[in-house]
Amino acid sequence: MFFHIKELQFRAKPEKPDPVYARKLQEVLGGQFGEMSVMMQYLFQGFNCRADRKYRDMLLDIGTEEIGHVEMLCTMISQLLDGAPADQVDEMAKDPLIAAALGGMNPQHTIVSGMGAMPSDSNGYPWNSKYIISSGNLLADFRANLNAESQGLVQVVRLYEQTTDPGIRDMLSFMIARDIMHQNQWMAAIEEIEQLEGPIAPASFPREQTVEEATRQFLNFSEGEASSAGRWANGPLPDGTGNFEYVANPQAQGGVPELKPPADHQHSTPGTGPYIVNKGKLDK
Amino acid sequence: MFFHIKELQFRAKPEKPDPVYARKLQEVLGGQFGEMSVMMQYLFQGFNCRADRKYRDMLLDIGTEEIGHVEMLCTMISQLLDGAPADQVDEMAKDPLIAAALGGMNPQHTIVSGMGAMPSDSNGYPWNSKYIISSGNLLADFRANLNAESQGLVQVVRLYEQTTDPGIRDMLSFMIARDIMHQNQWMAAIEEIEQLEGPIAPASFPREQTVEEATRQFLNFSEGEASSAGRWANGPLPDGTGNFEYVANPQAQGGVPELKPPADHQHSTPGTGPYIVNKGKLDK
Amino acid sequence: MFFHIKELQFRAKPEKPDPVYARKLQEVLGGQFGEMSVMMQYLFQGFNCRADRKYRDMLLDIGTEEIGHVEMLCTMISQLLDGAPADQVDEMAKDPLIAAALGGMNPQHTIVSGMGAMPSDSNGYPWNSKYIISSGNLLADFRANLNAESQGLVQVVRLYEQTTDPGIRDMLSFMIARDIMHQNQWMAAIEEIEQLEGPIAPASFPREQTVEEATRQFLNFSEGEASSAGRWANGPLPDGTGNFEYVANPQAQGGVPELKPPADHQHSTPGTGPYIVNKGKLDK
Amino acid sequence: MFFHIKELQFRAKPEKPDPVYARKLQEVLGGQFGEMSVMMQYLFQGFNCRADRKYRDMLLDIGTEEIGHVEMLCTMISQLLDGAPADQVDEMAKDPLIAAALGGMNPQHTIVSGMGAMPSDSNGYPWNSKYIISSGNLLADFRANLNAESQGLVQVVRLYEQTTDPGIRDMLSFMIARDIMHQNQWMAAIEEIEQLEGPIAPASFPREQTVEEATRQFLNFSEGEASSAGRWANGPLPDGTGNFEYVANPQAQGGVPELKPPADHQHSTPGTGPYIVNKGKLDK
Amino acid sequence: MFFHIKELQFRAKPEKPDPVYARKLQEVLGGQFGEMSVMMQYLFQGFNCRADRKYRDMLLDIGTEEIGHVEMLCTMISQLLDGAPADQVDEMAKDPLIAAALGGMNPQHTIVSGMGAMPSDSNGYPWNSKYIISSGNLLADFRANLNAESQGLVQVVRLYEQTTDPGIRDMLSFMIARDIMHQNQWMAAIEEIEQLEGPIAPASFPREQTVEEATRQFLNFSEGEASSAGRWANGPLPDGTGNFEYVANPQAQGGVPELKPPADHQHSTPGTGPYIVNKGKLDK
Amino acid sequence: MFFHIKELQFRAKPEKPDPVYARKLQEVLGGQFGEMSVMMQYLFQGFNCRADRKYRDMLLDIGTEEIGHVEMLCTMISQLLDGAPADQVDEMAKDPLIAAALGGMNPQHTIVSGMGAMPSDSNGYPWNSKYIISSGNLLADFRANLNAESQGLVQVVRLYEQTTDPGIRDMLSFMIARDIMHQNQWMAAIEEIEQLEGPIAPASFPREQTVEEATRQFLNFSEGEASSAGRWANGPLPDGTGNFEYVANPQAQGGVPELKPPADHQHSTPGTGPYIVNKGKLDK
Repeated sequence: MFFHIKELQFRAKPEKPDPVYARKLQEVLGGQFGEMSVMMQYLFQGFNCRADRKYRDMLLDIGTEEIGHVEMLCTMISQLLDGAPADQVDEMAKDPLIAAALGGMNPQHTIVSGMGAMPSDSNGYPWNSKYIISSGNLLADFRANLNAESQGLVQVVRLYEQTTDPGIRDMLSFMIARDIMHQNQWMAAIEEIEQLEGPIAPASFPREQTVEEATRQFLNFSEGEASSAGRWANGPLPDGTGNFEYVANPQAQGGVPELKPPADHQHSTPGTGPYIVNKGKLDK
Repeated sequence: MFFHIKELQFRAKPEKPDPVYARKLQEVLGGQFGEMSVMMQYLFQGFNCRADRKYRDMLLDIGTEEIGHVEMLCTMISQLLDGAPADQVDEMAKDPLIAAALGGMNPQHTIVSGMGAMPSDSNGYPWNSKYIISSGNLLADFRANLNAESQGLVQVVRLYEQTTDPGIRDMLSFMIARDIMHQNQWMAAIEEIEQLEGPIAPASFPREQTVEEATRQFLNFSEGEASSAGRWANGPLPDGTGNFEYVANPQAQGGVPELKPPADHQHSTPGTGPYIVNKGKLDK
Repeated sequence: MFFHIKELQFRAKPEKPDPVYARKLQEVLGGQFGEMSVMMQYLFQGFNCRADRKYRDMLLDIGTEEIGHVEMLCTMISQLLDGAPADQVDEMAKDPLIAAALGGMNPQHTIVSGMGAMPSDSNGYPWNSKYIISSGNLLADFRANLNAESQGLVQVVRLYEQTTDPGIRDMLSFMIARDIMHQNQWMAAIEEIEQLEGPIAPASFPREQTVEEATRQFLNFSEGEASSAGRWANGPLPDGTGNFEYVANPQAQGGVPELKPPADHQHSTPGTGPYIVNKGKLDK
Repeated sequence: MFFHIKELQFRAKPEKPDPVYARKLQEVLGGQFGEMSVMMQYLFQGFNCRADRKYRDMLLDIGTEEIGHVEMLCTMISQLLDGAPADQVDEMAKDPLIAAALGGMNPQHTIVSGMGAMPSDSNGYPWNSKYIISSGNLLADFRANLNAESQGLVQVVRLYEQTTDPGIRDMLSFMIARDIMHQNQWMAAIEEIEQLEGPIAPASFPREQTVEEATRQFLNFSEGEASSAGRWANGPLPDGTGNFEYVANPQAQGGVPELKPPADHQHSTPGTGPYIVNKGKLDK
Repeated sequence: MFFHIKELQFRAKPEKPDPVYARKLQEVLGGQFGEMSVMMQYLFQGFNCRADRKYRDMLLDIGTEEIGHVEMLCTMISQLLDGAPADQVDEMAKDPLIAAALGGMNPQHTIVSGMGAMPSDSNGYPWNSKYIISSGNLLADFRANLNAESQGLVQVVRLYEQTTDPGIRDMLSFMIARDIMHQNQWMAAIEEIEQLEGPIAPASFPREQTVEEATRQFLNFSEGEASSAGRWANGPLPDGTGNFEYVANPQAQGGVPELKPPADHQHSTPGTGPYIVNKGKLDK
Repeated sequence: MFFHIKELQFRAKPEKPDPVYARKLQEVLGGQFGEMSVMMQYLFQGFNCRADRKYRDMLLDIGTEEIGHVEMLCTMISQLLDGAPADQVDEMAKDPLIAAALGGMNPQHTIVSGMGAMPSDSNGYPWNSKYIISSGNLLADFRANLNAESQGLVQVVRLYEQTTDPGIRDMLSFMIARDIMHQNQWMAAIEEIEQLEGPIAPASFPREQTVEEATRQFLNFSEGEASSAGRWANGPLPDGTGNFEYVANPQAQGGVPELKPPADHQHSTPGTGPYIVNKGKLDK
């Protein structure tokens, strides 16, 4: 069960409105790697958690924090939209700067949301739950979380670069800090799980039931061998089971596939010879 | 530019058809973490790569391999659908086992795809490109890739458990091996980047422009302190800038948000007192 | 800012697992009118609220409660999935009842979510934010909320009918009660706003700038006049501006539309006469 | 069965083209609450109607009218796009006003639709049928309809404010009138159903099978009691079963959830202790 | 403007209910190539038509007919759902045939739509407007229409095969006839346009501004030359500009792409050498 | 199995960057009829092909070529984005031309993709697999392919018109040539299949099981008979089974639909008379 307090976790007040930036900031609210994604991802991982209780507790702690980040971004976006042009704009658009601002805005901010934040990204694409994952395998899921915080931080930093407004930067400097902490957090959590289970997710599938040589081979599916120069093609495998092997000319092992001709009731095309029109099997 | 050869990378032939399993196998073809996702993710990361050429080459090698995995899964699914009930099934459904099989099948396999594979998941939801990411930041993207291979392997292993067909297991044992290799590969590539840049993605944002104490604090947003027991709340930060701090009672720092009343032209509701019906500003 | 406590708002424990019902229950978690929808709708309306503070507070109270409903449903679904068949199911499926259960399950529960709840509906379609609205006009939004609670209750009641499990019914009897309360709540809130503003949302557009007779006319766009028998075609208009009028034979007032021929650079088809192939305007 | 006549229901002719406004107007054609939504919602409710025939007839009358509104909006948008810049625009964009107009346009109008209307919203997001509902419960559905007409009218009025073109305003003044009528219509229809069934949708679930006190309680899930000041927390319940009760400190009634550990075949992470790598149950 | 009459265009009455078939029939109502698609595609092409009026009239004639087909399918689906199991189904599911039927049903028919048709496909995926096209180029669009009628007929015929119910077959035999007519219609319309413009859509781009040899070459991008045996690699080009050429070993003409290194403000990874952590350009 | 070579199929190098055009060019990369669509459509048709092997080979040849077109477009888009404004743009936007350019750009190019191509269209809408079809019926599928190449060419030609950059036009002149070739190719392939099977897809449904007169009738569902003037209403049917017939006043053949009242457990509204609140059937 959840409770709310009225104060924001951190300041979220721009120095001045900027409806074009409001559109951009939607990306880290309702985009693929925005705060809605981490909020829902951590909450679902927590609610579904079948592991030791400390994991559930930790996941719900951070998921609950992220609801507050959604709140901060919504508050910021609403203020960035104060005074956005939304009245007789065909007349106002005779000024090229206003016209340009209109081009850079999300029209739904003035038509749909009443100058409020929307649960969508910087192109107005709605958030959807295929952005998130809760698999029950903590190693896999913590990697998903580390990825989300990494992609999210890259995006927030890019947005920080695009403005000079001290109020926006103030809020972003806090969000950047939390994303750094959360990357640290997931790296630490991954380290803990890897010490228990090893680095392959899931750890529990018997290696002898795999095609074992294929677990070591980097396959060079292109002309040239520039790809042989990386750590991924040389030295010990991170899972400790051997060394990388670079296969310069990978060979097909699977033969040419042969599919059966289509069944009559599918009315597909065999395409193999003269075909009598209208002679199906349905002659009843 | 790409070329095709007729042989499959590995065998993809079931011992016998199983249209219910065909539906399930769609998950790792066209689902969130299926082969279409890794194929498109690696190809886009490769095509867009602005880093040293060995990364582009490596990304396109593995992306090109994954096109071949899509091919194997399509071939397998088509064969699993051979002989699926699709003719006068209302009559056949008087047999409870056939009726049950019909319930477990994807009806689009018989209506839409002509007993062929579909670019969608086990519930018939279409693949879409919001499953993938190409950010230009290699550390972030390699974490996305490690996540994709981890989630993907968890799913493939679960599917392996659900069948006893030796032909399906033969193919999956190869795919499992490649997913293990690819987890190893991305771990190795991450290690290489982290040695250049450190573990925070992106590395290049000045730490002093963040709210620095917030980069270290685990905030306990729930009653009880079970979450204090993990590595994520104790000991050195993975990025080497200090130690985790556990904040048992996080405090709001942001004040209560105050939004301005709505502009007249938005026709929103201030809700603050008697409101004169039909008195808008449009009195021209 | 938000906090979490470990206890659920109400009991959420089935008497026995039922993975087929788990799939169905997803509808009121992640479907169009599920708990995720009301949770996100109320939170966004609250975060964006520019009206008197009591509205914001009320919206966030109920939005916060709904996060806890999402928690309860996730908990219930995880338990309904305990022991679901997910191992060598091709062999188990020789039993028609197990085979039928497999047909009725969501395969992603065993492949993707590790026997946990998913943020999607009973057909595996993901939740998306186009399910919700926050317009800034409270009357419009409270009607959206009343609709959501009405549709949601209809669905929960139908789900109640489909099971006899006392544990599921126990939880649903609480959710039904809250949906009844929330319908009452939104009716009361609508009443309050209508007393301030009148019943048309928005109230503030000048009536004389509309085509006034069209605000009263029920237009009979079909053969026969069965539609004349309802309250919507007889008696006073709810907004108090006159009486309904039934127009048995509506007339077109708009003339036949005439669109200009396509511009050359669009390479569209005028279709009006002999057309010279390859004579576009690009003759530079 | 349906018929078409060539004339439009009302005039739809702008004084001059305005391709930026064309993009915005898409919102009320193909957006969440646009004319496509009400058209399809009323038609599906009508086609599926199992109630007294007058309801079916009424629903199909208004659904049929809405097809004509889609027609009017398409006609208007095509004309607003006449002469939009779509030829050597890199050269034209040296004029800042043209450049700004290009920024404000939907590029698909020039690339995809050949200067025609598209079935999508002002951000180019396609219409989808999750915008609509047909539940079979008339009270719930009429509330959905009242909501749609309310949200739709708020949007149309906002669009009216954004232009001064007399031709656009002429058409919108008719659409505004119809939306007012349709709000009146649905209020009247709701009144009729509520007199038969009472105000809770659905009316037919036995109240004694609910947790009855929960049907009356406003739960204050936040610090502070501003939310106690509204009609929703005071006085009689609209359904006549008692009075609202304000619960200032809601208590959890559900205990702490306990989920079972994951099954072996799920390859999830219990996270509870040393874990033997590669020792799954698949030892055959 | 549109009108409705109460009668259906053709009979739509099953001999007996079949809720499993109801789910399947959704495919040709709300699927990619269902009746909603052709209805909306023809209406949008008609509303947007800038060509000679006979095309607009023809498009709206057929679009209007298709609204009536949606009506027939909805009516049929509602009747197929009569008496579907939706009450205490956990008890009923002890009968394997009922359990199997439940597996084959769309659960939303009992939870969401109240035993009515839904605007979605046989997997519950909603109809969306990206299924349709209206480009303004009649040749391209008539090919889209011919494709839609071809795919649609293949699906309807497959559905016909899956039932023996005389009432369903009666309705489908009419829909099949109309799809045959509509294929004939679009072939005839294409023939008319091709006689005016030639067979390439659009006809109006100057051939000399293309890479002309590439308009004739079949490129063999795979090992082996089985693809050389078809009409597409031999004989005259359908557009009359020469003969097909089979290129057995296509050569790359484009050189190796070289992308510039990332800009600093993108915080991407150059990956080319030791990288100084936290040294971005933001040193203000 | 697939291989990659480093060279592009054709040159893809703009003379100068143009981030606004980069956004537009996304349409033919990741839009409804972009290169991702034809690539995936041909690959899936090829992988699933049950017809004579020459068809599979041909489909995979062209599908493999299209992967290379995706590569070319990604390369072009990345270069068009070089130097796009993404740093302190609030300051830069005081210049109206820069402000306008920002309005015309896709903000995700600077926030999400790191100045790289995205798998989405010109409005940022993601590619999804419902854009493609693989039905198993070659005639239907080749028509889908001809449609895709026709729509795609119309779009590419329109994009060609919008720029004067010689580098972009160089690449597009090649893509236009290939689209012309591919239209020729599919026309030839269709001709080959039609000679085997006749022009109705599928050919195999017995004509006598249809409502035969309905296979010939053009139904005039609107006032006026402009639609009688086309080839689609006069002369021989393309399938050779007779002549078109123009039905000026089509008659309903289906009677008025009658649906049964709703079942009690659906809690729907019969709406037929006084209804006893709370008297459901659940009186246990």
